[in-house]
Order: sequence, then C-alpha cells, then structure tokens
Amino acid sequence: TRPFQIAVLAGDGIGREVMPEGLRCLRAAAERFGLSLQLHEFDWAHCDHYLAHGQMMPADWKAQLSGMDAIYFGAVGWPETVPDHVSLWGSLLKFRREFDQYVNLRPVRLFEGVPCPLTGRRAGDIDYIVVRENTEGEYTALGGVMFEGTEREIVVQESVYSRHGAERLLRFAFELARSRPRRRLALATKSNGIAISMPWWDQRADAVARDFPEVALEKHHIDILAARFVLQPDRFDVVAATNLFGDILSDLGPATTGTIGLAPSANLNPERSFPSLFEPVHGSAPDIYGKGIANPIAMIWSGALMLDFLARGTGAGRAAHDAIVQAIETVLRDGPRTPDLGGNANTREVGAAIAAHL
Amino acid sequence: TRPFQIAVLAGDGIGREVMPEGLRCLRAAAERFGLSLQLHEFDWAHCDHYLAHGQMMPADWKAQLSGMDAIYFGAVGWPETVPDHVSLWGSLLKFRREFDQYVNLRPVRLFEGVPCPLTGRRAGDIDYIVVRENTEGEYTALGGVMFEGTEREIVVQESVYSRHGAERLLRFAFELARSRPRRRLALATKSNGIAISMPWWDQRADAVARDFPEVALEKHHIDILAARFVLQPDRFDVVAATNLFGDILSDLGPATTGTIGLAPSANLNPERSFPSLFEPVHGSAPDIYGKGIANPIAMIWSGALMLDFLARGTGAGRAAHDAIVQAIETVLRDGPRTPDLGGNANTREVGAAIAAHL
Ligand SMILES: CC(C)[C@H](C(=O)O)[C@@H](O)C(=O)O
Ligand SMILES: CC(C)[C@H](C(=O)O)[C@@H](O)C(=O)O
Repeated sequence: TRPFQIAVLAGDGIGREVMPEGLRCLRAAAERFGLSLQLHEFDWAHCDHYLAHGQMMPADWKAQLSGMDAIYFGAVGWPETVPDHVSLWGSLLKFRREFDQYVNLRPVRLFEGVPCPLTGRRAGDIDYIVVRENTEGEYTALGGVMFEGTEREIVVQESVYSRHGAERLLRFAFELARSRPRRRLALATKSNGIAISMPWWDQRADAVARDFPEVALEKHHIDILAARFVLQPDRFDVVAATNLFGDILSDLGPATTGTIGLAPSANLNPERSFPSLFEPVHGSAPDIYGKGIANPIAMIWSGALMLDFLARGTGAGRAAHDAIVQAIETVLRDGPRTPDLGGNANTREVGAAIAAHL
Repeated sequence: TRPFQIAVLAGDGIGREVMPEGLRCLRAAAERFGLSLQLHEFDWAHCDHYLAHGQMMPADWKAQLSGMDAIYFGAVGWPETVPDHVSLWGSLLKFRREFDQYVNLRPVRLFEGVPCPLTGRRAGDIDYIVVRENTEGEYTALGGVMFEGTEREIVVQESVYSRHGAERLLRFAFELARSRPRRRLALATKSNGIAISMPWWDQRADAVARDFPEVALEKHHIDILAARFVLQPDRFDVVAATNLFGDILSDLGPATTGTIGLAPSANLNPERSFPSLFEPVHGSAPDIYGKGIANPIAMIWSGALMLDFLARGTGAGRAAHDAIVQAIETVLRDGPRTPDLGGNANTREVGAAIAAHL
C-alpha cells in the first residue's frame, strides 16, 4: 500500500525545537507498527518567509500540499516582527478553512507525575475532549470601521455560522460522545447574552440531539462553563463549542491539568477530501525559544493523533497512538522532564526518552 | 443631606433569598457609619412579572427608577418558563445599557477559610479586579438568519464597539491600575483570530496607554489569559476586557478562589448621570432555590461596593465598605458557612453573622 504522505511544517519559535522530537517518535512508532510514512519538509509557513517574500506561503501552497494525507505542524507566530493576525491568517487559519478541517479535537487529560494546579485531583479525574468548530464563527475579517479616526468611530465585527457548519460539528461531537462510556455532551453557549447566534446554536444542538437519544446533552453558558472546568472537571466527557469558545476552553482545560505544554490537537477533515492537520495547542513561545527547553510532548502526542486518524481502518493506527500515549505517560511519571514540569531536562532528552519507550 | 435613594430589585430564584441578607447588612453598616439610605422595593424585573404581563418590567420603569442613586439587584432568570435571553434582555441588560453603566467592576479575591481549588495558593495570592466593558461589544441582537429552515441556513451575529465606549472603559481601567500599588494592567484580546475588532482594541489600549506611562500594560489573548488565571493568578492586578471576555473572566476568576457564590459586581455609570447597579455575579440558581441555603456573601459584598460608590466623597463610604468586607472575612474564616463552602448554615444565619460583626 501507498505510504502516508505527510507534510512537515515546523513554523516559528519552539515549533522548530519540538518538531524534530515529534518526528523522532513518529518514525519510531511507525516502524514498530508497520506503518509506512513519507515525510515532506517544507520551508515556509513561518515569519521568516513572510519577511523575505511578503507572504507566509508561496502562491502554489495548495498545489504543493494537495497530495498530502496530513500536515504535521509546529507553531506559527513571531509578533515582534509580524503581527499575529497576519502570520496566522496567512497560514494556520488558511489551512483550517481551505482544507475544510472543520473539527478541532483537543483532548484534555491529567497525567500521573504532572503536578495538578487543582487541589486533590488525580490522574483519571480530568479526562475529556473539546470538539471545537474550526472553520467559521467568530474568526472572521468581516466588518469594518466607520467614522475612522474621529470621536464617533464605530467598529462592527461579524461572526458567521452556517447550519451546515454547526450541524456537522455537532453530529461529530454526538457520535464521539456516543462512542465513549459516559455518553455525555456539554455544549458551550451564551444564549443569554449573544442574542442571535447563540440561541440558534442551542436550537441546532436540540435538533441534532434527537438523533442521539443515548447521549445526555447539557448546555452551559461559557462563563459558568469556564468556572466548572476549574470546580467540577470530572463532570465533563465531550465538550462541543464554537470556534472562539473552543479556543478558550482548550487552553483553559489543559491549564487545569498542569501545563498547556502537553495539549495536542487534531484539525480534521473527517471526510478526507483534504489533508488534516495535527499541531500542539501551544504557540511559538518566543519567550523561551532558543533555549532548547520547550516541552515536546504536545507535538509528540499530536503525532499520535495523526497516526490514529491516518490508519484508522487497519487497527495499527490506534495501536500506534496508544503506544505513543503510553510512552508519554511513562516519561511523565518517571522523567525526564522539561522545566515547565519542574525538571531540568531539555527538549531533546524528553523526545529521546519517549522514543526509547517505543 | 438627602438620603441615598436605593431601588431594591430581588429578581428571581435565589436573588429573593439573598436580598434580605444584603439589606440587613446594608442597614447595619449604614447605621454604624452614619449613612442615610432610603430603600424602595419594586416587585418587577422577574420572570413572574413576565408571565403575568408579557414583559419583565412596567412601561414606565425608567421613570420609576430615575430618581434613584443606585439599584441593588438580586438575580434574574427562570429558564424553565422564560428563555434567558428574554428575561435578561428585558431587565439587567436594559439597565446596563439605558443607564449607561459602562464599567462592570468585578473584584476577585482569595479569602482565608475558603478552600482554594488551586494548589498551594493562600489568601493574598489572588487579588485582582476585572474591569469589564458593560454596554456594547459582543452582546447584541444585531444580525440575522438567511435561508432560514433550509440546508443553506446562515447566521450573522454582529459585535459593535465604539471608540467612545472602548476608550472610556480603558481610561477607567488605567486610572484604577495607577491607583493600586502594583500598577499593572492586563488587556484581554484575541487579535490573532478575531480580525477586525480585536486588533482595533489593541490599538485603542496602546493609544490610551500613552497617558499612563506609570502603568505596565500587557496584552493577553483570551485563551492563554484564561489559562494564566489558573496557572499564574498572582500575576494579575487590573484586567480590562470587552463585554464577553469580561463575562468569562469574571466567572473563571472567582471559581479559582473557591466559589462564584462570593463574587460581587458594580455596574457603574461613573459620571452619576444615571443610577449604578450592584449585583452578585452568580445568577438565580434554580437548582438550589427554595432550600434557603444560597450563599448571601456576593449580595452583601455588592452592597459594600454600593456604599463605597455612593458615598465616595465623604470617606464614610470607604469605611462602610471596608467594615463589611472585614466582617465577611471574619465569617469566612470562623464560620458559619453555607453548604457551597462545606458548612451547613443557611442563608439567614450567614447574613446575621456578618451583620453582627458590623
Ligand atoms: C446573565 C447574563 C446575561 C450576565 C452576563 O453575561 O452579563 C451574567 O452572566 C453576568 O455576568 O452578569
Ligand atoms: C494562534 C491562534 C490563531 C489559534 C486559534 O485561536 O485558533 C490558537 O490559539 C489555537 O488555539 O490553535
């Protein structure tokens, strides 16, 4: 069978430091489970490219990536030289939209060996997955400024949702919830304040819920939902959210498990009409770049999600995923650890340790 | 001198249970510090009124409240019979807008005696104040649905910001930050994703910052800001935010201090052209209503903020505020406590204990 074609885009900052460790573990797992991967490194989608060429990616980026099954992505952003909305809209957000990666899956899990910032929580108490709508909603450049530069200046910012977009996301989330032992789905809403789109989201969820009577649906306003991530994290199983709410929850959730340095994500086009993208939730972290101390685990775990998705049909994907997650668990428990987890190992040492367990 | 005119609106659910305790403490503090209050109870702005009359408030609500200096407000909402967006837009959100209460002040503080959900944090480690824009932004009923009921259905939701609105809020936040020992201001943004309004907010903050060279301004994207409320709460002093972001942060912050049952808020019209409104951050909590176990502290603390604001000129307002907060501190440390804090006292017992310390 044809090897899986994987585009490798390290990006900016610590994306460049964690990527080699991600690749190391990917290769180790692929070999062990007989998965054949072909890796293609591309030297664009980073701010140096922007500074040299005035855009984040070459004009034919889509053609270059079109034969790929997946994109393995580091992190983008270097706000000192390129504003974030330029670098992100010119790369990551373009991929999510143009490759219709409409599900952003973000598992949140508390591991043994990682000091939890929440009192009295142990491994197993926090174990849920955020299912974030990833292509529409609050992230738009629609709207504008009126009376610019005067005292009367007014800004309109538009959010746009489609029934197609909301329902396919909800359906994915319900299906995921149904496949898990607890069968619970929480919907992030704000229908008491955001008066057009959010009551509509509530209705969409109720409509889709009719096809999933086995799943218990609960709606939470985003404010109290954020509070409950801290106060009652064991209550959650699958959490569905719009683009913005999912963004917030998928940084907050990992923070409650000790660090966002661990959190992986899968930007999926479930129909496989386009490549899906796998990346850590953390960004390029300019403040620690260059020290070689970035935690590579989010990158490595993202690789596990990628193998699972790519080889779902065969069973080998799931096996490779589970083996990587198990190796991560072991290293988190026994070390070595990077400084964000209280250790003094560097990025490479942690990557090598995880690869060794594979 | 003319007594302060205070409208009392208990609202729905536990708003009705905590209000008597709020009034008890208000009266005790006013007496002790020689503040003269005239209380006017109104039996509307609750869902029973809506069910009886088809609207949350009488047509002349504005006239009825126009002589008031402040509104002491319980909580609104009874989603079982009236959708939240109906009850809230028909009362609380109307007050905020029509009385131009453009600053929503929400102190977040960890008290001795309240079990903190964050490991190793003690009283004093969490002590910041969220300054939320309270009249515009994401909370609108602007936009609409196109192709309704078909597969092509599209929803547009508009957020609207004004330079006037953003700058006066920012100016208030900078002034507050300048008056505090740490002189730090954090701005909640999302300029890397929400591409029109959020870069504009960043610019507004930079513009206002020029008048406050003594204040250190830091911008945080809302996702990482939420994470930092959990991981580094001691880093924050004053936090300025749009309506929606302020809403989320002012539930999340209190959650990290153990309970949102304590969090007070002041919806201010700083120019005193209209009455300001003081209310707990928690809502009407239908799940515990009727048991008499709601924690009245947020209501009581909101009363302290009200006296401080009303009698700012005289010094007696600050003294009354500080005395109430001290009485709250004492009761939190020594009891009695409501069930949300692990005790078994009821609402009345806690209110009486705080009043006794006054
Ligand atoms: C009830 C709701 C509309 C309100 C808000 O979102 O402003 C509440 O959550 C608050 O924070 O005061
Ligand atoms: C960098 C930013 C645009 C991005 C987002 O908000 O989606 C990031 O925070 C994420 O969560 O992947």
